[in-house]
Amino acid sequence: MTYSVAIIGATGIVGQQAITALINHPEFEISALAGSEKSAGKRYADAINRNDIIEWYADTELTAEISAMKIHNSTELNPKDFDLVFSCVESDVARILEPKFAEHCPVISTASAFRYEEDVPLIIPSVNPEQADLIKTQKAKRGWNGFICPIPNCTTTGLAITLKPLDKAFGVKNVMMTSLQAISGAGRNPGVKALDIIDNVVPYIPGEEEKVEKETKKILGKNFGVSCTCMRVAVLEGHTESVFVELQKEASIEDVKKAFENFSTKINTHSTPKHLIKVFSDPSRPQPRLDRDTGGGLTTCVGRIRKDEIFGLKYVLLSHNTKMGAAAGAVWLAELLAQKGYVN
Amino acid sequence: MTYSVAIIGATGIVGQQAITALINHPEFEISALAGSEKSAGKRYADAINRNDIIEWYADTELTAEISAMKIHNSTELNPKDFDLVFSCVESDVARILEPKFAEHCPVISTASAFRYEEDVPLIIPSVNPEQADLIKTQKAKRGWNGFICPIPNCTTTGLAITLKPLDKAFGVKNVMMTSLQAISGAGRNPGVKALDIIDNVVPYIPGEEEKVEKETKKILGKNFGVSCTCMRVAVLEGHTESVFVELQKEASIEDVKKAFENFSTKINTHSTPKHLIKVFSDPSRPQPRLDRDTGGGLTTCVGRIRKDEIFGLKYVLLSHNTKMGAAAGAVWLAELLAQKGYVN
Amino acid sequence: MTYSVAIIGATGIVGQQAITALINHPEFEISALAGSEKSAGKRYADAINRNDIIEWYADTELTAEISAMKIHNSTELNPKDFDLVFSCVESDVARILEPKFAEHCPVISTASAFRYEEDVPLIIPSVNPEQADLIKTQKAKRGWNGFICPIPNCTTTGLAITLKPLDKAFGVKNVMMTSLQAISGAGRNPGVKALDIIDNVVPYIPGEEEKVEKETKKILGKNFGVSCTCMRVAVLEGHTESVFVELQKEASIEDVKKAFENFSTKINTHSTPKHLIKVFSDPSRPQPRLDRDTGGGLTTCVGRIRKDEIFGLKYVLLSHNTKMGAAAGAVWLAELLAQKGYVN
Amino acid sequence: MTYSVAIIGATGIVGQQAITALINHPEFEISALAGSEKSAGKRYADAINRNDIIEWYADTELTAEISAMKIHNSTELNPKDFDLVFSCVESDVARILEPKFAEHCPVISTASAFRYEEDVPLIIPSVNPEQADLIKTQKAKRGWNGFICPIPNCTTTGLAITLKPLDKAFGVKNVMMTSLQAISGAGRNPGVKALDIIDNVVPYIPGEEEKVEKETKKILGKNFGVSCTCMRVAVLEGHTESVFVELQKEASIEDVKKAFENFSTKINTHSTPKHLIKVFSDPSRPQPRLDRDTGGGLTTCVGRIRKDEIFGLKYVLLSHNTKMGAAAGAVWLAELLAQKGYVN
Repeated sequence: MTYSVAIIGATGIVGQQAITALINHPEFEISALAGSEKSAGKRYADAINRNDIIEWYADTELTAEISAMKIHNSTELNPKDFDLVFSCVESDVARILEPKFAEHCPVISTASAFRYEEDVPLIIPSVNPEQADLIKTQKAKRGWNGFICPIPNCTTTGLAITLKPLDKAFGVKNVMMTSLQAISGAGRNPGVKALDIIDNVVPYIPGEEEKVEKETKKILGKNFGVSCTCMRVAVLEGHTESVFVELQKEASIEDVKKAFENFSTKINTHSTPKHLIKVFSDPSRPQPRLDRDTGGGLTTCVGRIRKDEIFGLKYVLLSHNTKMGAAAGAVWLAELLAQKGYVN
Repeated sequence: MTYSVAIIGATGIVGQQAITALINHPEFEISALAGSEKSAGKRYADAINRNDIIEWYADTELTAEISAMKIHNSTELNPKDFDLVFSCVESDVARILEPKFAEHCPVISTASAFRYEEDVPLIIPSVNPEQADLIKTQKAKRGWNGFICPIPNCTTTGLAITLKPLDKAFGVKNVMMTSLQAISGAGRNPGVKALDIIDNVVPYIPGEEEKVEKETKKILGKNFGVSCTCMRVAVLEGHTESVFVELQKEASIEDVKKAFENFSTKINTHSTPKHLIKVFSDPSRPQPRLDRDTGGGLTTCVGRIRKDEIFGLKYVLLSHNTKMGAAAGAVWLAELLAQKGYVN
Repeated sequence: MTYSVAIIGATGIVGQQAITALINHPEFEISALAGSEKSAGKRYADAINRNDIIEWYADTELTAEISAMKIHNSTELNPKDFDLVFSCVESDVARILEPKFAEHCPVISTASAFRYEEDVPLIIPSVNPEQADLIKTQKAKRGWNGFICPIPNCTTTGLAITLKPLDKAFGVKNVMMTSLQAISGAGRNPGVKALDIIDNVVPYIPGEEEKVEKETKKILGKNFGVSCTCMRVAVLEGHTESVFVELQKEASIEDVKKAFENFSTKINTHSTPKHLIKVFSDPSRPQPRLDRDTGGGLTTCVGRIRKDEIFGLKYVLLSHNTKMGAAAGAVWLAELLAQKGYVN
Repeated sequence: MTYSVAIIGATGIVGQQAITALINHPEFEISALAGSEKSAGKRYADAINRNDIIEWYADTELTAEISAMKIHNSTELNPKDFDLVFSCVESDVARILEPKFAEHCPVISTASAFRYEEDVPLIIPSVNPEQADLIKTQKAKRGWNGFICPIPNCTTTGLAITLKPLDKAFGVKNVMMTSLQAISGAGRNPGVKALDIIDNVVPYIPGEEEKVEKETKKILGKNFGVSCTCMRVAVLEGHTESVFVELQKEASIEDVKKAFENFSTKINTHSTPKHLIKVFSDPSRPQPRLDRDTGGGLTTCVGRIRKDEIFGLKYVLLSHNTKMGAAAGAVWLAELLAQKGYVN
C-alpha cells in the first residue's frame, strides 16, 4: 500500500530534507513537488539554482529524477490528487494554503501557523502520540475531510524529547534553556548570511523563544515554567541546548541517565530510530558536527548530565534541526498517523 | 613616575595582550619579557614562530622593538629588579613561580592558582576595589614584601560586572548562565584546534564552570546561587553569556537598564573605560565580532534585557576575554593598586 | 572648498564603505543617500534592518547621524543638486541610472556597466592617472556636462597595482592568477550564504574572471596574457591572490622586491596611502585577517616573492576588496579627479 | 588469506584514517597499533584524549574495539610479527623507524622520508603501478627482506591523477597550480590552530610546494614544468586545486573531458573506486564539503574545464587529502602490491 504525497515548499531547506526522507520510502511516494509562483514551471534543479550555485543543502546527492521534476505552483495543485501533503512553507504562506489542502486531505506541516490553535495537535511521535485524537475534533469542528497536523519548532523538539522521560519519572517543574542553533534553521532564502555569522554569534532569533515556551507546554500537556534564550552560531546543522531543570521529585544523576536511556516508544514504523535518546559519558559530547546524524538524525543526544546547585539538574542536548526537527520528523509523524488510520 | 615591570608567560596569548596593553603605557614600562626554558634566550619573534607562522594573536602589530627583545627564563629573573610583575603563565606554573616573585614585589596574575585562598583578593576595579585591603593581611601573614593579586577568570569578569549593579540595587539571589566562549580563551599552545571547532560547538571547558561559580561569589562578597554551563564556539575573541537572574526585589526592565547604564566607578586611571556597561536596545546585539572592542575591550556589552517567567530577568552579555577578561584587566588592576599605594 | 556628494546604492556593502570613507572627509560632504524604491523613505538604519539584524558590515560604527538619514529613491534625485555622485549600485541598475546623472555631474562608479566602453577611463590613481584625459573625449562625444568614471573590479585592483611596477621595470608578458576571494565581495543582498561557505570553497564567481582579464589589460594599457581562476573562501574581507608572472627582462628576486617597495605616486591627496605596496619577508604573510587593513585598507600587501621554474616569478598578494577595491578606492579616485579639475 | 598488519603512528590523523580504512577490510587485519613512547601503554581512546576531548577526526565512529586496544611503542614492535606495516608517522621519525621494519617486512608509508630516493618507488595505483618493479632493485640493493613503498604527498595525488590521462592523450608540457588545502592535512598534533585559520587564509605550507613539484615528475616518470603555490584555507577535509596546463598537442575541451572520464585502471582490488575521475559540468563544482567523499573519498573530482588564453587549458580539481591522499590511498597501494606478490 503506497500513499501518493505532494510536498509544498519543496525548494526550501525543509522541503529538500522532506524529499530526502521520502525518496525510497516504503509507504510514501512523491507525486508532486510544489513551490512559489516564481519557481513554478521550472525543473527542480533550475528552481534552486542561484548564480550557478545549486542550492541543495541536504546531505544526500540531489538525484537526476528529482532534478528533472517540474515544480508546480502550490496554489494550483488539486488537493484531491493526493493522499497526503507535506507542507514545508513559511508560516504566512501556510496560514493561507494549508486550510485549502486540509479541506480535502491530511496536511503534515513544519510551519508554525496552526500550532497554537486548540483543535490542532502538536505531536512528537515518541512523546505524545495520543494527541492525535484531536484530529477527530478538528475535522468535525471545521468540517474538513482532511486536517492539519503540525510538528513542533526544531528547537522545541529535542527539549521536549528529553523532558518527557524526566517528567514521567520525576515531574518537571521548571526549565531554563539556552540554545546554540545551526544556520540551516534559518532556511535557504535568504537564510543566514556568511557575513553575519563567521567569527560571530547572533544572540537573537525572532519569535523562536516564544515558540519554544508555548510548544513545550502544549506537547507535554501541562503548564510549567519554561524560559529560554535562543542564539545562532556558526554550525551547519544541529541545535545544541544547555538545559537546567528543576524536578518535583529528588533524582540522582544515575536515575536521570537511566530515565533517558530507557526512554522508548511502542510506535514501530519505518523511521522509528533504534534509540530515542543517546547518553554520552564523554564530557565533551555531544558535539553537533560529530553527533548530529546519530540514528539517522532522529536520535536526540544528551551529555554533561550533572547536579545543578539551583535547579538540581543540568545537561546539554543536541538535536538535528532539519531532520528530527523538521522534515524527517514530519515523515515519522505521517507514518504514525497512517498507522493510526488517519491517512487513506 | 614610571614603574619597571616584567611579564612572565610573555609568549602566550595573555602575555601578548599584556604587551599590547603596556606599550605606550604612561606609568608602566616593560623591562623584561620572560618565558619557559624552551623560549629563553630567543628573540621574542622567534620564540612565537611555529613552522614559519608568527603566532602573534593580539590585534595590534607586533612591533620591531618587542620582536627583538630577548626572552628571559622566568625562573632566573631577579624579582628585586622590578617594581611589578605581570604573571601570564598557566596555573601549575603560577603556583610555583608567583610566590618566589611575591616575596619581593607585587605580582598581578591572570592565573587561577591563588584565587581561592583566603588572604588573596580577587578584584575587578569597577566591582570590588575595596578587596585590595586584603593585601595587607596577605603580606603580614606570609611575611612577603610583595603580594599576589589575581584577576578573575575571563568568563567570570563580564558576569560579575553585570551582577554588581543589580545586586546593589535589587539584590541578586540566583544566577544561571550559559557561556559561548571564544577560542582565544584556550590560549596559544596548543589552544583550540581548527579541526575541533569549525562547524562545531564543544560543550565543555574543563574546570571553567567551577571557577565561575566560586569566583563570582568571592568577588560579590556574598553567598548566592550561581550555576553555569560553559561551551566553546567558533569565535576568535569575545565571550557571549546568556544570563538568567532572580532578584530579591521587584525590578522593571527599565529599572534594570538604568542600573546597568548608571553603573560607574570613582576609579580614575589610564585604563578606566568611559562606560563600564553599554546597553543595546537592538535585539540582535551584542555580537562578539561587532561589539567586543567597545571601550577598547574594557566595556561590558549587554542586550536583550527582558522579563523571564521563572527568574524574572534575563539578558545577554558580551565581554572581551583577552582584554577586560585578561591582560588589559590586569593592567587596569595594577593601575588601581599603584594609585592605592601598593606598588612602589 | 567642500563638494556636495550623493551616494546611490547606499544601503549595499559598497555603499556602506563609501559612507565610512566619506564621513569626516575634508573635501566631500554627504548630502544625500539614495537606494531602491523599496528603501526609499525609510531611515537608513531601518532600510538595512532584516529580521531585527542591522546589516551594517563596515568596520566603523554606524553613526546616529547616518542611521537617521532618510533614503531617497535613486531615480528621483536631481543630479543638479550635487557636485559629485558615488554610484555603488549593481551593474544592471548602473547601466540605466549612471548616464542620467552623468548628463549633469561627475559619477564615480564601482559598477562594471561602463568599464569596457572606449571613451570611459578605468583608473587606479597610483597606476594610470593619465587615463583621466579620456574624460574630455567622453564629455565631448556624449554631450554630457558630467561623466562616468568607474573603478576596476576589486580582484583586478591588487593585481594591477602589483603588475604596474613590474611592467615598468621589466615588462610583463604573461600573468596567471588564482584568487581566494572574501565573501563581502558578493555584497549584502543576498550575498554569500553561510550554508554555502562554512567548511567549503566555491570555485566559481560568475563573470569575475572575464572582468579581471579585460580590466587588467585596459588599466596597464597594453595587450598581454592574463588568465585567472576566481574562487570564494570563508574570509570576511580581503582578496588573496596567487600570481605567476612571466617578465620580458630577467629580474632577480631582489630586483622585484625593490620594484615593489619603490613603487610610489606623485598624487598627494587625503586618501593616498603612505605605502602603495608593502612587502613581507615572513613567508606566511600576507594573511587577510592580519594584513587587510594595512594603510587603512589602501596598501596592497605582497609576500612569498620567489623564483618560478616556468614563468620566472611568483608571489602572493592581498588587497582589501571593499576598501581599496571598492568604496575607499572610489573616494581616492574622486580626490584625484577633483585635483585635476574634473569636479566643480 | 588474511595479512596481519601493524599501524605505526596510529594516533595521528593519518593513522586514524588508516584504522578506518582497515576495519572490516577483507584482506588486512589490524594486529597492532603503535605510537610514540608517550602514548605507549595507554588505551587508544586515552592516547588521543586531550583535556577530555577525544581527538578522533575520521568520519566513522571510533569503535569500542579500537578504543580499548593498547598502544605499543613503535620502537619496540618486532617487524617479524607482521606481514605488512602501515607507517603513518612524521618524516623525521620515518627516516629512523621505517628501515628497521623494512629489513624484515613491507612498509607502506605516508611519510616523505624516502620518496625521493632512486630505488624507492612512488606509486598511485591508477597512475603508475609499473613503478612497483623498483621494489626488487630496492630489496637487492639494500639487502632487505621487506621494502619501503611510500605514497605521494596528498596535494600531489589529485594533480598526478588528473595529469596522467592528459599526458597519455596529449602530452603535458607545463603545469601551474595553486592549492587551497584543508586543515586536516596539517595533522593532529598540533595541527592548524583555530586562531590561525578562522576568517583567514595562510598562504604558505612549509615544504609542500617542493614536494608537489618533485613528486609529480617522479610519478609521471618525466621531466616537465611544474610550479605551485600552496595555501591553507578553513576547510576540514579536501584539497581544492586551481590548475593551468600546457599540452603538447592541441586538445578541445571535449577531448579533455573525454580523457578524464575514460581514465580507468585494470587494477581490480577491494578499494579500487568505480570512477577514477568524476567530471562536473555545474560550474560551481567540485566543492570540498559537497564532493570530497565521492567514491568513498578515492575519486578525484574535476570541474570548470575550460580554455586558457596562455596555456590552453585550465580546470579545478578536488581530492580527499586524508583518504585518497593518505591512508585510504596507502591501503589501496597495499592491495596492489599484495596482488602483485610483494606481500607474503
